[in-house]
Amino acid sequence: MPQEISRRTLIELSVAGTAALAAAEARAQRRPALPKDQKIGFAVVGLGKLSQGQIIPGLRSARSAKLVAVVSGHRDKAARIAAAEGLPTDAIYSYEDYDRIAQDPRIQVVYIVLPNAMHAEYTIRALKAGKHVLCEKPMATSVADCEAMIAAAKAANRKLMIAYRCHYEPKNLEAMRRIRSGALGKPRLVVTDMGRQADPSDPSDAWRLDRKLAGDGALGDMGIYGVNASRYLLNEEPVEVRAWGNTDKSDPRFATTDDLIAWQFRFPSGAICNGSTSFNYNATMSFEVWGEKARIRADPGAFYGGNHFAMVDGGNLKEIDTPEVDQFAREMDWMADVVRGKAPLVSPGEEGLQDVRLMKAITDSLARGGAPISTDWGYKRAVDPAAVVDIVA
Amino acid sequence: MPQEISRRTLIELSVAGTAALAAAEARAQRRPALPKDQKIGFAVVGLGKLSQGQIIPGLRSARSAKLVAVVSGHRDKAARIAAAEGLPTDAIYSYEDYDRIAQDPRIQVVYIVLPNAMHAEYTIRALKAGKHVLCEKPMATSVADCEAMIAAAKAANRKLMIAYRCHYEPKNLEAMRRIRSGALGKPRLVVTDMGRQADPSDPSDAWRLDRKLAGDGALGDMGIYGVNASRYLLNEEPVEVRAWGNTDKSDPRFATTDDLIAWQFRFPSGAICNGSTSFNYNATMSFEVWGEKARIRADPGAFYGGNHFAMVDGGNLKEIDTPEVDQFAREMDWMADVVRGKAPLVSPGEEGLQDVRLMKAITDSLARGGAPISTDWGYKRAVDPAAVVDIVA
Repeated sequence: MPQEISRRTLIELSVAGTAALAAAEARAQRRPALPKDQKIGFAVVGLGKLSQGQIIPGLRSARSAKLVAVVSGHRDKAARIAAAEGLPTDAIYSYEDYDRIAQDPRIQVVYIVLPNAMHAEYTIRALKAGKHVLCEKPMATSVADCEAMIAAAKAANRKLMIAYRCHYEPKNLEAMRRIRSGALGKPRLVVTDMGRQADPSDPSDAWRLDRKLAGDGALGDMGIYGVNASRYLLNEEPVEVRAWGNTDKSDPRFATTDDLIAWQFRFPSGAICNGSTSFNYNATMSFEVWGEKARIRADPGAFYGGNHFAMVDGGNLKEIDTPEVDQFAREMDWMADVVRGKAPLVSPGEEGLQDVRLMKAITDSLARGGAPISTDWGYKRAVDPAAVVDIVA
Repeated sequence: MPQEISRRTLIELSVAGTAALAAAEARAQRRPALPKDQKIGFAVVGLGKLSQGQIIPGLRSARSAKLVAVVSGHRDKAARIAAAEGLPTDAIYSYEDYDRIAQDPRIQVVYIVLPNAMHAEYTIRALKAGKHVLCEKPMATSVADCEAMIAAAKAANRKLMIAYRCHYEPKNLEAMRRIRSGALGKPRLVVTDMGRQADPSDPSDAWRLDRKLAGDGALGDMGIYGVNASRYLLNEEPVEVRAWGNTDKSDPRFATTDDLIAWQFRFPSGAICNGSTSFNYNATMSFEVWGEKARIRADPGAFYGGNHFAMVDGGNLKEIDTPEVDQFAREMDWMADVVRGKAPLVSPGEEGLQDVRLMKAITDSLARGGAPISTDWGYKRAVDPAAVVDIVA
């Protein structure tokens, strides 16, 4: 079934110009929500800032997904959120009774929104409980954990999707389409800058500054958007990486993690990516792609909303206007449609593993004074995210 | 005398906030032109696209500088331009009778606008003829040539200025001032991208694609703006460089020169610069500076006009508005004021040499597969270009 849909969207993509694609986009926008009893039930695991601020609100407006359970170590917080969302008390799980979700037919998808180092354990337990899993990025803090998660999904015959929000965001999709269509000419250079000020007094940042919980610091939280963007923009995989860093070890925030890292990827086409990330600079999630003929500038390109994309030809700039959507709703709707057999799995575990491997290569190069590290291990993604055009009701 | 002015502008810079600096800027804008007989006489050497399109028009509107002679290998072109500019026929020189400028008291400054490999010879001959020299960037095609030019200026006791247009451009100056004032917090990252499509059928590009005449290709013509910008934005000098490239040798334009080069500079403060340049991508002269608190985006930042600078704080963008000026007129007026003893020499030969040495380090790293090259040779500029606030009439 997923193959049928994949074929349809890919055909649509290959035969269509931007106009037809925009029409498909508009169609997707107009598609009505499923009746509530046909929506796919999501359990949200971890009730931090992202869950409360984005994911649960996203589920309220999703067309194919709905919130059916919450999992938290904080009973009071969980009870408050469950009540506000109209969930019965038996839809509240703690980490201790988490495995009981296996007996809860309301839950079809478990969305893992925990500190990175806990992704593998809670993903694998959900898969063993027979649930599909949507897992936040970065997928895990080690290649071995990623591989174990992929193996668990295969063994359980369940879907494992990594929450690459930008794969489902209209402006990023339009950028991919224009690049694929040749509107920029041959892409030569990608620049990605992803950073922000980390606030150790904010609990949702405190764990991100702790290597045991987060793995990488700025790179794992923010830089990963650039690592992933360079790949989905160019639609190829880096074969070599080098990195330099700058971490002020007198700043207590960086006792265990790296701060600024600047890396370069070399791609098989010859294109180069200059990437950078930091937990100690002004918030930015921007990228640019220089082609022979034109350039796409996204500044910001990966915020939750309010992104600005433009085609730039010398001093002449044309905004890329696409509908503003609830990006979290869209991503979860896609996962729901994957579960319903209506959409291909665009960002599977293998896609998350690839970024974790590349980030490992970046930190390996950093540790070796910027030595080039080969990343030519032959990964190819199964589905081009540019195929994300329409979600079939 | 220059010291007095330098002190004054530096005091102005150090005591003033942006408001006072803007006032100084406005004062400079309002300053009337000198009477024609008090203007400094310029001879323009080389009558290609830049001279005809920018420099000679700039001299028409300059306040302290005027065109008094042209030097060209094309007698017809020179005669046509001389007539249009109201110059007598004895103000037309060929390369053969160039040394006769020594006997021409109308000429005080010689502006060298020749292919890069000819800069050294024509600069040194002008200095030996007792003239001051303004020389286009890159200063020369070798470190040895730069050193010979500096020595010749010293021996002749004449001024040698390199035409770093952006050192005199209001938006770039405002960016420098804001960075120096701490408005961005500590600068952490600079990204510079400077490129365009080179057109081999255009004579002014043809020589830029010939290593014998140009030295470096895209790096020497466009990339140098980024090399220089990272230094004037951060007000420090890189201590280490690495570079990767991508040149399509099947493209006949790149038979002798490099195309795309992506480099990284490491600065003593810990700041990093990701730079890139190409003769095979869409025109761009952009840079960004990320600080702890805010970011400055310049896109474009180094065009002849129409540059757009903005302060960016997360998704919030505020344009930096400064007067649009004739950048070439302003640069030549500064040179004229240097000659008149009214302004400090901001971009002397040493400043040109520093960029040539850094570009040599970039191409050395490129040739060695991206190996880090130390650039920690202790260069310090004499005058911060941020001091360019006011030109005293």
